[in-house]
Amino acid sequence: MCRWLAYSGTPIPVEEVLFKPAYSLVLQSLHARSSLTTTNGDGFGMGWYGHSGSPRLYRSTNPAWNDRNLRELAAEVESPMFFAHVRSSTGTSVQQTNCHPFRHGKFLFMHNGEISGWAQVKRDLAMAVEPGLFTSIEGTTDSEMMFYLALTFGLEKDVPEAIARMVGLVEKVGKAHGIERPICMTLAIGDGTRIWFFRYASDGKAPTLYFSTDIRELRKLYPDIPRFRTVGDDTRMVVSEPFVDLPGAWQEVPQSSWGVIQEGEDRVHGFAAV
Amino acid sequence: MCRWLAYSGTPIPVEEVLFKPAYSLVLQSLHARSSLTTTNGDGFGMGWYGHSGSPRLYRSTNPAWNDRNLRELAAEVESPMFFAHVRSSTGTSVQQTNCHPFRHGKFLFMHNGEISGWAQVKRDLAMAVEPGLFTSIEGTTDSEMMFYLALTFGLEKDVPEAIARMVGLVEKVGKAHGIERPICMTLAIGDGTRIWFFRYASDGKAPTLYFSTDIRELRKLYPDIPRFRTVGDDTRMVVSEPFVDLPGAWQEVPQSSWGVIQEGEDRVHGFAAV
Amino acid sequence: MCRWLAYSGTPIPVEEVLFKPAYSLVLQSLHARSSLTTTNGDGFGMGWYGHSGSPRLYRSTNPAWNDRNLRELAAEVESPMFFAHVRSSTGTSVQQTNCHPFRHGKFLFMHNGEISGWAQVKRDLAMAVEPGLFTSIEGTTDSEMMFYLALTFGLEKDVPEAIARMVGLVEKVGKAHGIERPICMTLAIGDGTRIWFFRYASDGKAPTLYFSTDIRELRKLYPDIPRFRTVGDDTRMVVSEPFVDLPGAWQEVPQSSWGVIQEGEDRVHGFAAV
Amino acid sequence: MCRWLAYSGTPIPVEEVLFKPAYSLVLQSLHARSSLTTTNGDGFGMGWYGHSGSPRLYRSTNPAWNDRNLRELAAEVESPMFFAHVRSSTGTSVQQTNCHPFRHGKFLFMHNGEISGWAQVKRDLAMAVEPGLFTSIEGTTDSEMMFYLALTFGLEKDVPEAIARMVGLVEKVGKAHGIERPICMTLAIGDGTRIWFFRYASDGKAPTLYFSTDIRELRKLYPDIPRFRTVGDDTRMVVSEPFVDLPGAWQEVPQSSWGVIQEGEDRVHGFAAV
Repeated sequence: MCRWLAYSGTPIPVEEVLFKPAYSLVLQSLHARSSLTTTNGDGFGMGWYGHSGSPRLYRSTNPAWNDRNLRELAAEVESPMFFAHVRSSTGTSVQQTNCHPFRHGKFLFMHNGEISGWAQVKRDLAMAVEPGLFTSIEGTTDSEMMFYLALTFGLEKDVPEAIARMVGLVEKVGKAHGIERPICMTLAIGDGTRIWFFRYASDGKAPTLYFSTDIRELRKLYPDIPRFRTVGDDTRMVVSEPFVDLPGAWQEVPQSSWGVIQEGEDRVHGFAAV
Repeated sequence: MCRWLAYSGTPIPVEEVLFKPAYSLVLQSLHARSSLTTTNGDGFGMGWYGHSGSPRLYRSTNPAWNDRNLRELAAEVESPMFFAHVRSSTGTSVQQTNCHPFRHGKFLFMHNGEISGWAQVKRDLAMAVEPGLFTSIEGTTDSEMMFYLALTFGLEKDVPEAIARMVGLVEKVGKAHGIERPICMTLAIGDGTRIWFFRYASDGKAPTLYFSTDIRELRKLYPDIPRFRTVGDDTRMVVSEPFVDLPGAWQEVPQSSWGVIQEGEDRVHGFAAV
Repeated sequence: MCRWLAYSGTPIPVEEVLFKPAYSLVLQSLHARSSLTTTNGDGFGMGWYGHSGSPRLYRSTNPAWNDRNLRELAAEVESPMFFAHVRSSTGTSVQQTNCHPFRHGKFLFMHNGEISGWAQVKRDLAMAVEPGLFTSIEGTTDSEMMFYLALTFGLEKDVPEAIARMVGLVEKVGKAHGIERPICMTLAIGDGTRIWFFRYASDGKAPTLYFSTDIRELRKLYPDIPRFRTVGDDTRMVVSEPFVDLPGAWQEVPQSSWGVIQEGEDRVHGFAAV
Repeated sequence: MCRWLAYSGTPIPVEEVLFKPAYSLVLQSLHARSSLTTTNGDGFGMGWYGHSGSPRLYRSTNPAWNDRNLRELAAEVESPMFFAHVRSSTGTSVQQTNCHPFRHGKFLFMHNGEISGWAQVKRDLAMAVEPGLFTSIEGTTDSEMMFYLALTFGLEKDVPEAIARMVGLVEKVGKAHGIERPICMTLAIGDGTRIWFFRYASDGKAPTLYFSTDIRELRKLYPDIPRFRTVGDDTRMVVSEPFVDLPGAWQEVPQSSWGVIQEGEDRVHGFAAV
């Protein structure tokens, strides 16, 4: 089980969420609190939308807590949308190409959870990837395969539909191999202007996921926290687990649901495989 | 283009061929002489048959010339059969799972050369791998795919036949994609008692390959070289390029041929795709 | 706080103590039980006396739990004396030259604990190192400095005396800088035939240390454990924390004491700085 | 012998000088042309002045040519002043703390060359470093020691004076140890607004160093090169070797001289040790 966070809003230095909070993502790499696996030391990654609007990646097989370059970048990079992920491998190699987020065109994708029986179902899933995309797969994780299946199913046009079809295929292939609970996941997907998030598991027991309370509410609840005043009304985060203990600051994303962070009101919808 | 060596015979410390010769493999990682690509700094690997007869691996993404652990191991490991490889990537990632040699059961496999148009043919070749083997593929190289195709075609029963069928498939798939010269390769394959080697290219221009002259001949030619007296009559090497300039010490392996190092006399045979 | 183990006796594959026990050292790298710092993921090292009797090292900045080369080596290396160490940095860089064990001539040295106020006292201690040895210091840890100070004070002639003088100097220099508890440590030092171990702290609160019960006793206590019958009477281990829960199998080393594992009877002595 | 470049002027993406030119620094890491050592694969580093004006570092032990994160950052980072360095170790470890540039406060420092007899003189030089600075030394290179000696001699107040005194000490200590040619160097030192560069060797044979011709001249010489029109008049570079073959574009820095890039006219002065 990994841990991740996705940020959208007023550009702030990445370190403000990656290093500074009491239970920051980097501390979660050493000791996660709401996870079965408490150490997430099998590499990490950071993705952000840069000056030109293109997504950039910094991924490493070092544990996040002792990577010096990460500290440098987290102090320097300020972006209106960034993703960060600390990995705990469920078996596949610790290598840069297996670190999240994954990127394709303007899309970033990261995952916590797993496809059960990965060794058994991998080939069938790989065959279902669109041939023109197949060769872009660089690593060996179930997560990257989920991304390429979703791309095959039209992620660039309709994110929730593509994810529903991807999950549907994984459920079907898994069951054909006698796997009882083929998938569990939380996902974040960005395109530079929106972030989609998903929480789902075959058995209804997906890992935790939270989104931040509307910043206008937070200002009322916590008038003394300066950061809440300096970021814009559209600033939002989605996280595997809260990194500060502020009552009212985090809303749990329900099981079997998805949402999107974008201009206008956020909404959370029910999610089902297709 | 990579560089490699394979050794079979009286156990000697690996460092005697890896570090000590005038143009040792580790120096070839810095400056190869008979190769278009002169720097082979994209990782390396060493495989050997250990105490129990099982093949062991040490692979790293560091350049061989500055890896301290390699120096330690090369001084310690003494084996009757070992492989070493310095990599120059033809495009795929520099990661441990892309370093040679590759291993499956008791087999070690390493390659120099490439499958042309790899991005175009990768999927078709992957589909041809036996489903039960597919999931064992860990990296993204053309080389590892060649190994798994050969395993699919019965490498464990008949090495030359399996390689001929693998090359035949690569030729066929490549041509179907309009690729003129689909494959070029030198290969070494070991099973703990024998080493097979191959030199082949679609256009007859495979990279260089040499095997060492019979040690009994070498003793006559060079009576003053102590190492020739201390190793047994069955000691042989196959190398991408000679690492000492001793006239008469190296025999070039002809284009389109293969051989096997084993008890009894060595022979070199013609090779053709099936 | 790090975790370590030292083994002396009948050669066994290193993996038997490094990977296979219920609370093996590699699992301790993920979750130590008797330590304030539970994750020891800032690199690791293994040192052993090889074929020729020389000490060999394999050290890496990866976490031990996900290092593939370590698994290979631990399966292959069988040695009558080996050291292994998983590191949790107390502030100095995660780099190979800061990984334990350290080596000088035939000596191996590893440490758990710290010199308090390291930044303040480092220069004074460095000045005290014998000039001919100074240049061999490769890393930046307090641990390596302790080793070079002990070498300066005659480690190669009298280990307990040299350690007592080293600790005496650290105590003196620390106090001169106003540091209340200048040192805490457990140490293992090997020369290929003996292993010395030390447990000491300025305030009497050194980290835990255990040595294994005499194997002849263990055979009586646990007649059904096959490994106890296949290793010789002189087989011993010293460990930061027990890696199997066998009542009677581990003896705690008292605070302020040292011992030596060698032919004949083991004894534990009181230790004091000189 | 390493290779480096320093840029000052209109912010441009670092990749324009690091990756895109015909003989870019990254290609020099594979095959330098004006150097005895042609491969500079022992790590690299990049330093730049970021949004806040603070110097940032990205340093890695990978060869520059196969580091994916470097490609990402070089595309993203645009800075009015940046340094880049590819390393060929003269013996010290390949580790991040030995990669250039080094940083202290607002200063960046990088070096090509060496202190001869480093093992012999290291201790004497270390003793000369101001005690309050000593503990900030993180690596083991002669280069970093030169930086800390210069800081000891007032680098933050008067760069040329501090470098002259540092070189004077190295010459004196070297000669006291019977070393004939104690030092050879090219240096770049930045503080965010100026870049100082030095070329000096005890025997008058320092490695090559070039600075770029005034951009106003370059526009006249090469009216068709668009980049010359889009950067400001104050844009300058200093490089170990030219990375494009444009006659008139590069001025060799004479032996035993130094210069500074700043507002107003550049001048090159004679340099002598003090």
